[in-house]
Amino acid sequence: MSDTLPSSRSLVSDLPRCIGQRVTLRGFAEAIRDQKRMRFIVLRDPTGKVQLTQSKDQAVLTAALDALTPESAVIVTGTVVAAPAVKLGGLEVVLESVEICALADAHLPIAHDSGLDKWIDHRQVSLRYPEQQLVFAVQTTLEEAMRAFWKQQGFREIHSPKLMGTASESGSEVFAVKYFDTTAFLAQSPQFYKQMAIAGGMEKVFEIGPVFRAEPSFTSRHETEFTSIDMEIGWIEDHHQLMAFEERWLAYAIGTVAEVHGPEIELLFGIRIVPPALPFPRVTFAEANEILAQLGHVPTRQDDLDAEGERLLCERIATETGHEFVFITDYPASGRAFYHMRHEDRPDLTKGFDLLWRGLEITTGAQREHRYDRLVAQAEERGMRLDSLSDYLDFFRFGCPPHGGMGVGLGRILMRLLNAASIREVTLLSRTPKRLRP
Amino acid sequence: MSDTLPSSRSLVSDLPRCIGQRVTLRGFAEAIRDQKRMRFIVLRDPTGKVQLTQSKDQAVLTAALDALTPESAVIVTGTVVAAPAVKLGGLEVVLESVEICALADAHLPIAHDSGLDKWIDHRQVSLRYPEQQLVFAVQTTLEEAMRAFWKQQGFREIHSPKLMGTASESGSEVFAVKYFDTTAFLAQSPQFYKQMAIAGGMEKVFEIGPVFRAEPSFTSRHETEFTSIDMEIGWIEDHHQLMAFEERWLAYAIGTVAEVHGPEIELLFGIRIVPPALPFPRVTFAEANEILAQLGHVPTRQDDLDAEGERLLCERIATETGHEFVFITDYPASGRAFYHMRHEDRPDLTKGFDLLWRGLEITTGAQREHRYDRLVAQAEERGMRLDSLSDYLDFFRFGCPPHGGMGVGLGRILMRLLNAASIREVTLLSRTPKRLRP
Repeated sequence: MSDTLPSSRSLVSDLPRCIGQRVTLRGFAEAIRDQKRMRFIVLRDPTGKVQLTQSKDQAVLTAALDALTPESAVIVTGTVVAAPAVKLGGLEVVLESVEICALADAHLPIAHDSGLDKWIDHRQVSLRYPEQQLVFAVQTTLEEAMRAFWKQQGFREIHSPKLMGTASESGSEVFAVKYFDTTAFLAQSPQFYKQMAIAGGMEKVFEIGPVFRAEPSFTSRHETEFTSIDMEIGWIEDHHQLMAFEERWLAYAIGTVAEVHGPEIELLFGIRIVPPALPFPRVTFAEANEILAQLGHVPTRQDDLDAEGERLLCERIATETGHEFVFITDYPASGRAFYHMRHEDRPDLTKGFDLLWRGLEITTGAQREHRYDRLVAQAEERGMRLDSLSDYLDFFRFGCPPHGGMGVGLGRILMRLLNAASIREVTLLSRTPKRLRP
Repeated sequence: MSDTLPSSRSLVSDLPRCIGQRVTLRGFAEAIRDQKRMRFIVLRDPTGKVQLTQSKDQAVLTAALDALTPESAVIVTGTVVAAPAVKLGGLEVVLESVEICALADAHLPIAHDSGLDKWIDHRQVSLRYPEQQLVFAVQTTLEEAMRAFWKQQGFREIHSPKLMGTASESGSEVFAVKYFDTTAFLAQSPQFYKQMAIAGGMEKVFEIGPVFRAEPSFTSRHETEFTSIDMEIGWIEDHHQLMAFEERWLAYAIGTVAEVHGPEIELLFGIRIVPPALPFPRVTFAEANEILAQLGHVPTRQDDLDAEGERLLCERIATETGHEFVFITDYPASGRAFYHMRHEDRPDLTKGFDLLWRGLEITTGAQREHRYDRLVAQAEERGMRLDSLSDYLDFFRFGCPPHGGMGVGLGRILMRLLNAASIREVTLLSRTPKRLRP
């Protein structure tokens, strides 16, 4: 972009190499300190902060800067001078001119120590905080690495529709949309369509996009709209191949984040990012329940783990193996979607799995049932209405490779990666039952 | 994925190097031809087609294959033998065993010469056609190249919410969603949020995601849901910097598609992909109207070009310059969104632009008004309700860099790139006022 962005722009990180030179900087006026004869401004750009100094005997400049408020967007020109006493890099910029591009209100709506809800109310301000800048830099790198891994494995990117004519698969509530003379529903996942792509011969597909859940959940890990990372792989032999793929893909993505942002994450979040060792531990649902029974945990459900059980199990696995991740496999059919494939010799058990990271479910996956007759039988067993499923069931009527895949929550990965207490700390704009704005 | 996908899999494209060897292939049984003593099957996988032969004196295999229908998904094992008379590569695979993974219905719902609407009704079948496989391979490569260019320029990826508390900016109709006890609206673009990210100090952001337009349009280039490619860039000096960026970004992406898929596109679509020369022609809206007047075109609107005008203009520019692209710049303010920046000396003209490709609008962009007071004045001038805009206007109250950006239609680029008559030929699943399924 050298010929499109202003060629005269210098960045704060360039300044140590510019002593004695005139530079033009662009950024926010983070702090302004007035003395009788001098004014000091801390300018922040994406690469750091620098002190600007202005001698008040320059009348025009003084008049211009008298109006300046903290967090205003400015373009400044001045000369870089060594100033060993200045904490910000031992240098300062002696101001010659300033252009105030957009003046901030004198009173900022939040400060760095405001609560999370205030941060979300005023995202245009809280996004400027260094940890928040880093969150989205990490998000960018994480997705880049995931896509690089998929690319290397020959995946195709798809964009499946979010507006559906019938409510999608899971039991969770769906949002209804007034659609001309009829009603549409927002997709809870790209599940049906990524399977359609497999039936359509695409073999390996991925999608990163929004999904919608009309559940009145108010936990730190649920949103009504969130970014789902979905993939589906054809010609697999069982769900263990999916897990083997996912752990390599995740380890690569986390390793890339460590390489690119490791030191900054350690500085701002106090965390050392270490790519997880391969393979990840795997325990069956039955084994998980044995472990939990030994720990004295009384389960609240027979066909799924409860949140406390997931936490305890991860703690035990971490103690035994030193590993933060664990796959739970072979869940009972009654607790899983009807299209999860069953074991031939144990039709009450699915080839489904979850991936937990420090107690948090970050993935649900499975080998799918690709045989039309069995799929219909499994839907009927649940008492589902076949007519409302007919488009989906038809995907499997004209030949479909064996396949499986998974859905991974982007926010949940970032939450664990950066040790965030709430998914809302690592989400651009939160959507909950009580929040639709800004 | 060497350790996760079946290690024994061979691809059709490997077979010339496997004469005399036993191989296992996975794919669809495209055609089946029965003779008294022999059976011939054409197997298709993503890399090509091969003839399988079966001698009917093998009773078990014969019984298994008697049930086989075209387009069933199969895994076959056999020996590769040279067969110079066979059109498909001069070889065939003598079958030893077969696993029918999923039997197709005896009657396929469509054929290659069925109409586009039938193709969409039965996407699990039409996606298997070679041109359709190529469309999504091209889409994948195009997006990869766009993201690689952004990465190299330091962009951040964002995921903005599609559920909004107030209807978003443009005059076009929005879809309403029942959202617990209130109403939400589906975002028509990430416009507000990418600008929020700029105010939040992110400087350069992009998003590829779904947008929703509740317009009852039935043209070959409109969908009610489509994939929008959005970017926003801070600290620009004018809209010409945005155009300079976009043309380099597009030329890079198209050039990458030419490199990766050029020969296959030429084979299947009869088109030679050539990356566009830089810079693209630019004409102001006023100049465009002069050219159209010379051509005898009577405009139907004063502040925008009509579709016929866009087509004629592109033809004229192509004749004069040999270029398929043209930027139209400096549109009248009355025809553009209220937040487009005006020229200081011509407040009736915006710093907005469109990009046309062979008569089709593929981009709308502009430098935005980043100064709160002016933005409020421009909204009031339109008679807009400031209270419903308050979250958006607040983005500019605490300092915001000068910035601008654009929205680009992914489907429209693919349409022009592959010379498709309808956007529905290059969309995974079409959504129109009359279509919500499959």
